[in-house]
Amino acid sequence: MRLKQELYEIIFEADTPKGKAFDVILLITILISILLVLLESVPSINAEYRGLLRILEWVITLVFTLEYLLRIFIVKRPFKYVFSFYGIIDLLAVLPTYLSLVFVGSHSLVVIRAIRLLRVFRIFKLNRYTVAGNNLSRALWASREKIFVFLFFIINLVIIVGTLMYLIEGPENSFVSIPSSIYWAIVTMTTVGYGDISPQTPLGQLLASVVMIAGYAIIAVPTGIVTAEMIRTPDKTNTQVCSQCLHDKHDNDAVFCKKCGTPLNGTHQS
Amino acid sequence: MRLKQELYEIIFEADTPKGKAFDVILLITILISILLVLLESVPSINAEYRGLLRILEWVITLVFTLEYLLRIFIVKRPFKYVFSFYGIIDLLAVLPTYLSLVFVGSHSLVVIRAIRLLRVFRIFKLNRYTVAGNNLSRALWASREKIFVFLFFIINLVIIVGTLMYLIEGPENSFVSIPSSIYWAIVTMTTVGYGDISPQTPLGQLLASVVMIAGYAIIAVPTGIVTAEMIRTPDKTNTQVCSQCLHDKHDNDAVFCKKCGTPLNGTHQS
Amino acid sequence: MRLKQELYEIIFEADTPKGKAFDVILLITILISILLVLLESVPSINAEYRGLLRILEWVITLVFTLEYLLRIFIVKRPFKYVFSFYGIIDLLAVLPTYLSLVFVGSHSLVVIRAIRLLRVFRIFKLNRYTVAGNNLSRALWASREKIFVFLFFIINLVIIVGTLMYLIEGPENSFVSIPSSIYWAIVTMTTVGYGDISPQTPLGQLLASVVMIAGYAIIAVPTGIVTAEMIRTPDKTNTQVCSQCLHDKHDNDAVFCKKCGTPLNGTHQS
Amino acid sequence: MRLKQELYEIIFEADTPKGKAFDVILLITILISILLVLLESVPSINAEYRGLLRILEWVITLVFTLEYLLRIFIVKRPFKYVFSFYGIIDLLAVLPTYLSLVFVGSHSLVVIRAIRLLRVFRIFKLNRYTVAGNNLSRALWASREKIFVFLFFIINLVIIVGTLMYLIEGPENSFVSIPSSIYWAIVTMTTVGYGDISPQTPLGQLLASVVMIAGYAIIAVPTGIVTAEMIRTPDKTNTQVCSQCLHDKHDNDAVFCKKCGTPLNGTHQS
Repeated sequence: MRLKQELYEIIFEADTPKGKAFDVILLITILISILLVLLESVPSINAEYRGLLRILEWVITLVFTLEYLLRIFIVKRPFKYVFSFYGIIDLLAVLPTYLSLVFVGSHSLVVIRAIRLLRVFRIFKLNRYTVAGNNLSRALWASREKIFVFLFFIINLVIIVGTLMYLIEGPENSFVSIPSSIYWAIVTMTTVGYGDISPQTPLGQLLASVVMIAGYAIIAVPTGIVTAEMIRTPDKTNTQVCSQCLHDKHDNDAVFCKKCGTPLNGTHQS
Repeated sequence: MRLKQELYEIIFEADTPKGKAFDVILLITILISILLVLLESVPSINAEYRGLLRILEWVITLVFTLEYLLRIFIVKRPFKYVFSFYGIIDLLAVLPTYLSLVFVGSHSLVVIRAIRLLRVFRIFKLNRYTVAGNNLSRALWASREKIFVFLFFIINLVIIVGTLMYLIEGPENSFVSIPSSIYWAIVTMTTVGYGDISPQTPLGQLLASVVMIAGYAIIAVPTGIVTAEMIRTPDKTNTQVCSQCLHDKHDNDAVFCKKCGTPLNGTHQS
Repeated sequence: MRLKQELYEIIFEADTPKGKAFDVILLITILISILLVLLESVPSINAEYRGLLRILEWVITLVFTLEYLLRIFIVKRPFKYVFSFYGIIDLLAVLPTYLSLVFVGSHSLVVIRAIRLLRVFRIFKLNRYTVAGNNLSRALWASREKIFVFLFFIINLVIIVGTLMYLIEGPENSFVSIPSSIYWAIVTMTTVGYGDISPQTPLGQLLASVVMIAGYAIIAVPTGIVTAEMIRTPDKTNTQVCSQCLHDKHDNDAVFCKKCGTPLNGTHQS
Repeated sequence: MRLKQELYEIIFEADTPKGKAFDVILLITILISILLVLLESVPSINAEYRGLLRILEWVITLVFTLEYLLRIFIVKRPFKYVFSFYGIIDLLAVLPTYLSLVFVGSHSLVVIRAIRLLRVFRIFKLNRYTVAGNNLSRALWASREKIFVFLFFIINLVIIVGTLMYLIEGPENSFVSIPSSIYWAIVTMTTVGYGDISPQTPLGQLLASVVMIAGYAIIAVPTGIVTAEMIRTPDKTNTQVCSQCLHDKHDNDAVFCKKCGTPLNGTHQS
């Protein structure tokens, strides 16, 4: 029991020196594993080091699998962990390698591991980056309705503009269908502008000009929404995680989990 | 009479469970009808599933026609509805399909059916998203004068820049005329940057650089305008529609329509 | 004398119905004259309607000449007007057409007529849009120092990045010289992205990625500057112009010009 | 000693007329030296004016060398200066030219001279623009945590999106490896959009559309962060530099250096 509690603090938290060390090692391992996937996809590198890359990939997968099983063993309510956000990500981080035994192409899906990098925030748990992140996402969350309305409006606009451009330019000027015209409208409205499709007729260029200037002005809207939300003062939060229910938004002076009453770090001090 | 009032609330409003259900179903139908228009324009899909697409198209057209007639029957002042914005949209949503029976060559006209998308905005009256939308459009409306001045300034700028680039680069570097140079100026100033026209001479590239950096800084202006407007606190609004004059901007405590005095939902409660 | 004063109010101010009407007509004439310049530059249109375009051009030039002479006659201090900003613009608006009679080759010079567009700004003194425009430019003027520092920083950055890319990519990957690499850096940093020059080596693409993400974040700076300035409350201004010294920034309750003491509109009421 | 103190104020500070004059001359010299580096890299100019450019280059190098030695002689603690940031920049500004005498092939190294541009920042200590610059950088520094979290999020997103696109489009559509797909994701997300790589399959275009709209909305985040920070009122700062420890952030009423206690400009007044 003693061991389990100590392991819990090392693996799930980052308040003790050992906990930090564990997280830092985990972080580095994740970065290496992502680098492996990237390198493997480069034809010239894959041709030369295929064997080495495969071995390293399996070593890392086994380490991650071990860590996953350990997490299940340590947590007080394993099911809750398994179906939590990080539980699912942790599983997805190892699954593709095993699946690649069955399905040959599914290997590079392993990149989902990149999401595990989010644990960086857990490591920075100790410090203000988590707070900054929480404040950011709180501002975005508070403005979700306006952003949703905005996106809905944009989608409507690109469908209408795309259809108009299909009528004006037509398949002979590489606007081959309405969906591909909508794709062009999105590329233009968001000011990306690949140039693979671009209007050729004067009328098409006129409409495109209007769309571009509109897109240029429209970008003010999400910016205004988010900025207005951010100006309202943000709050500090805390980096502790409850060992019972995995709730991770505790106040700085919290001693017990506000969701299930479990002492936070309590067993550690006694 | 009882039935007519109940139908009115279901079809025109969204405050009762039935009204919400109707709107959700209508939303899905509209989205499907838009999808049909999109798919029909893709040559490969149209070649293979032409028959199926035509049948589905007719089913949806009949449903929309029924709904249109029902709306005319239910509303207290049908003429007002027929010539209102949404009344015309509702008619245009079904007309092209019928016309394609009479005029064989009018097939390309069928694309006008994409106008059905505008019907989505009527349904979008559903819930708190309306409030967010109203608040957004109020902020934009309040800053309309500044945005107008800004757009006027941008249009002046692109005409002057376009003319200068025509003089500098000339037709030999694909700046074939002043209008197409203005088109280039818009593409550049808005940071879209297709690359179909780009300056070749050193002087042209210097001017283009100035335009790009200017455009990069100028985008701060609409953003500043809208943000400053959004910071001023917004208000809540309501989703009721008057059965008499179709006015749809009522306060939350409104019992009678402020435009024509008709009781709002009043007949429902008595 | 009576006539002169009345004409002054019609031509130079916009507070009376006649003054407004004059400005609207002038605005339309200017827009037509600009349209003529644009159309004349399109090869196909010029080939077909050359005669008509030339006639219209001369009609407009004569109207503008008449207006120019009238302005000189009306203003109390003609020399001040002739050498003022708008006086020079008004002259440049008609000069190129006359010059094209004397110097045959000076036809391309006729494009300078596009400068007539600047005259629009004088008319734009019409109504509340002026107030919006003044408030906008006041906010921009107040943030000029920060914007200057920002632009200076951007210029430094693109020179350094451009030089680095020239070293990394070199002339063999179309980064032919440092100036053209700087041009690429500006195209990239401002998110325009023509694609006429783009990095080919892995190291070049890595640096380009850093530059792009930096440019994406840097755009927040001018936006922040301008927005912060705009949130501070703006002031109303007035559209009267002094007949004596042409000063045009008077308070709403001003009866005399604060620069030279001349009564504003005073002769009008007596 | 008197001379040394006077020279110190001229060269290191910008509070006296002579000090300002020195800075302006230095600024112009630096700009000319940068222009030389730029021009030398243009093949056609280098071919024709090689001799003249070389002579000017040596003149400027000698002037900068003299200035560098003078700075060492004047400063109270020369070693501290030599190993300070600007001390190293000042050395690197002259070293490449001398090295090109010894190592013949090191000509391309001469491009490092562009580092002289960084010297501009030292001079930029001139006037109220410093205050604006300090206020700007203070706002950015205050929001560094949120910007860091934001960049971390963006990097995660482009890795995942890049991998997905590699799986969807694959090497046959120019998404040759995951790193180059990530490069594409950055080019798209930041709305640069070169168009050298662009999705060809419908699914790829759909994902690209989502990425573009996301990138369009995401740009609101850094803007919001910086704007919110800038709205908090900024402070004035001062342009004095301590002759002892080179600390340069003193309050306006400071008489002694707050880092080492040395009087600021004190010897000047006595």
